[in-house]
Amino acid sequence: MLQKTQIIKPDGRYLVFYSFDRPPPALATPEGGPSRGLGSLELRWNPLVEEWVVVASERQERTFLPPSRYCPFCPTRDPSFATEVPAPHYEVVALENRFPSFRPDAPEPAPAASELQTRTAARGVCEVILYSPEHHATLGGLPQAQVRHLLDAWADRYQELGARSDVHYVYIFENRGEEIGVTLTHPHGQIYAFPYLPPRIQRKLTAEAAYHERTGRCLHCDRFADELADGRRLVARRGDMVAFVPFAARFPYEVHILGRAHRPSLAALAGEEREALAAVLRTVLQKYDNLWSLPMPYMLAMHQAPTDGVERPGCHLHIELMPLYRSRGKLKYLAGSETGAGTFINDTLPEEKAEELRWAEPRT
Amino acid sequence: MLQKTQIIKPDGRYLVFYSFDRPPPALATPEGGPSRGLGSLELRWNPLVEEWVVVASERQERTFLPPSRYCPFCPTRDPSFATEVPAPHYEVVALENRFPSFRPDAPEPAPAASELQTRTAARGVCEVILYSPEHHATLGGLPQAQVRHLLDAWADRYQELGARSDVHYVYIFENRGEEIGVTLTHPHGQIYAFPYLPPRIQRKLTAEAAYHERTGRCLHCDRFADELADGRRLVARRGDMVAFVPFAARFPYEVHILGRAHRPSLAALAGEEREALAAVLRTVLQKYDNLWSLPMPYMLAMHQAPTDGVERPGCHLHIELMPLYRSRGKLKYLAGSETGAGTFINDTLPEEKAEELRWAEPRT
Repeated sequence: MLQKTQIIKPDGRYLVFYSFDRPPPALATPEGGPSRGLGSLELRWNPLVEEWVVVASERQERTFLPPSRYCPFCPTRDPSFATEVPAPHYEVVALENRFPSFRPDAPEPAPAASELQTRTAARGVCEVILYSPEHHATLGGLPQAQVRHLLDAWADRYQELGARSDVHYVYIFENRGEEIGVTLTHPHGQIYAFPYLPPRIQRKLTAEAAYHERTGRCLHCDRFADELADGRRLVARRGDMVAFVPFAARFPYEVHILGRAHRPSLAALAGEEREALAAVLRTVLQKYDNLWSLPMPYMLAMHQAPTDGVERPGCHLHIELMPLYRSRGKLKYLAGSETGAGTFINDTLPEEKAEELRWAEPRT
Repeated sequence: MLQKTQIIKPDGRYLVFYSFDRPPPALATPEGGPSRGLGSLELRWNPLVEEWVVVASERQERTFLPPSRYCPFCPTRDPSFATEVPAPHYEVVALENRFPSFRPDAPEPAPAASELQTRTAARGVCEVILYSPEHHATLGGLPQAQVRHLLDAWADRYQELGARSDVHYVYIFENRGEEIGVTLTHPHGQIYAFPYLPPRIQRKLTAEAAYHERTGRCLHCDRFADELADGRRLVARRGDMVAFVPFAARFPYEVHILGRAHRPSLAALAGEEREALAAVLRTVLQKYDNLWSLPMPYMLAMHQAPTDGVERPGCHLHIELMPLYRSRGKLKYLAGSETGAGTFINDTLPEEKAEELRWAEPRT
């Protein structure tokens, strides 16, 4: 049974304990611990492509790969070193990011100096989600029950943050590995609760709506059927959840996870669907690490329906996994073509990468 | 006076010598040298965001950081090692890429297995542009006259490639530094002659057209005036060419170079405008390397009018420079927010970065 316990830290940030198997931790009134960064934070409008850029200069000072003894995401086991979590144990924790890109109380910036210098307050919420109290754990290596608990916590964060009137899109993601710039190795993910629809999300929603308009069907329901019927790009399957390398993968080992049932969000998944999703996600992440017996750096992006109150029949929960390597020891770079022009070059055949992943057997 | 000499290499690829100061090289009939890669090459349609992904599996085998003795982009000085360039000297060279993402003779792929597996031939041209015969030269360190020659060669490539009926967009760019995945260190850039308008280019054209429609003016002409009047983000100026950190920079040390005159392309620049552009470009690149007395890895993207025959009054030549570092020794990563959701987080203030660059004095 999920139990939530919220506390407010000395610097005003909230922290939520998710308890499932054990009673919630006995809490002392939190004292000390890291406190909120300071600096400028605003949204600036880029008129060249009509999108917001977050200017968050306080993030420059964020904690950079501390020794594990000083990990801020471990439980506070030793009173002489107060971590972010004022308890000797936890299961899953959500807390406001010390170095956020959006903040509920972000200041209103000075008026624009000109029409081409449009800026606005970076209101929203940035959270860190701690997957496990174990410093050396990994998402793929967690027991099935713990991944299932994480899905339940994610679903709750989606609902709680999405209910805020200033939040239009709840974006759950993970960056894993120093190769993608992770500065703290403790197993964790992030949530950006955006006050607008981010540009790539907007393009996905537009494509989903156009497909639905044209065919009367959901693009992802059709992709589920198409990949299952084709079979060449399948990577794993558990119940009605499948993992596959998409036909037009941007990254060599990109994998999408998709369910048969048309669900807009994690919150709408039935219990057995959550179990199947946890199982498939673990399987794929274990396959990544098994490929070369090395931890695979990746980005995980959870795509759910926006929370801006607009009805969108084409929204269908899916996870995108984007590993950073194109082959053992060779990174895939987002260079001139990808970053400057927007066209991805994939140097590999999706069908071949899917076969490699099928053979990369998970640990049992 | 620009003189062009074209040859066809043994594997069928063309190579163009641009000669300015010296007569064109005396050429033996080329023999040997590297030859074209083989593998699958096609465009696959990504229905999730409605854009093409290039699947080019032959590129996986490309040459990876050979010792300088075996650089394929140096002139052929020793008959026992034939490089890509069958001449003992050159000034600027354009040649077809051995490992292209687009090819004029790309094969027609097999018919789509289903409606969601749309593919087409990756027709187009990919070129490598060799900036200098000197293996250890850098674009920013070249003499003014040589950068001017490069601009003339680029302008000619834009016109020649743009005249092809299968080319809709001529994209001139450079990736510099191993940090962005460069596999050959000899100073060079690339050109992708796309058979379609790449997604980020398409979004820029849409924004330019909307601005022109709304105001009757060119967005970039207005940006030129706005940045000059504001002054806080200016980095360098030569004549009617300015370099500035844009108000909504995506990268900490991002710089745009823009001219006062409304020119759609390099080919339309007057002689003194090309001289000024060469001078500003050199100045900014030298400032990058002077910042920390280290070679700054960057992406350079040249934005010119499409060559698809459509009239677009809002197109105005500009260069985007995107360096990879956010501070000394710390890379800017394109992680979950940027790559997954499309929103860039800039951890620095553009006004402060512009000031740092103003003070980073160029070598004389």
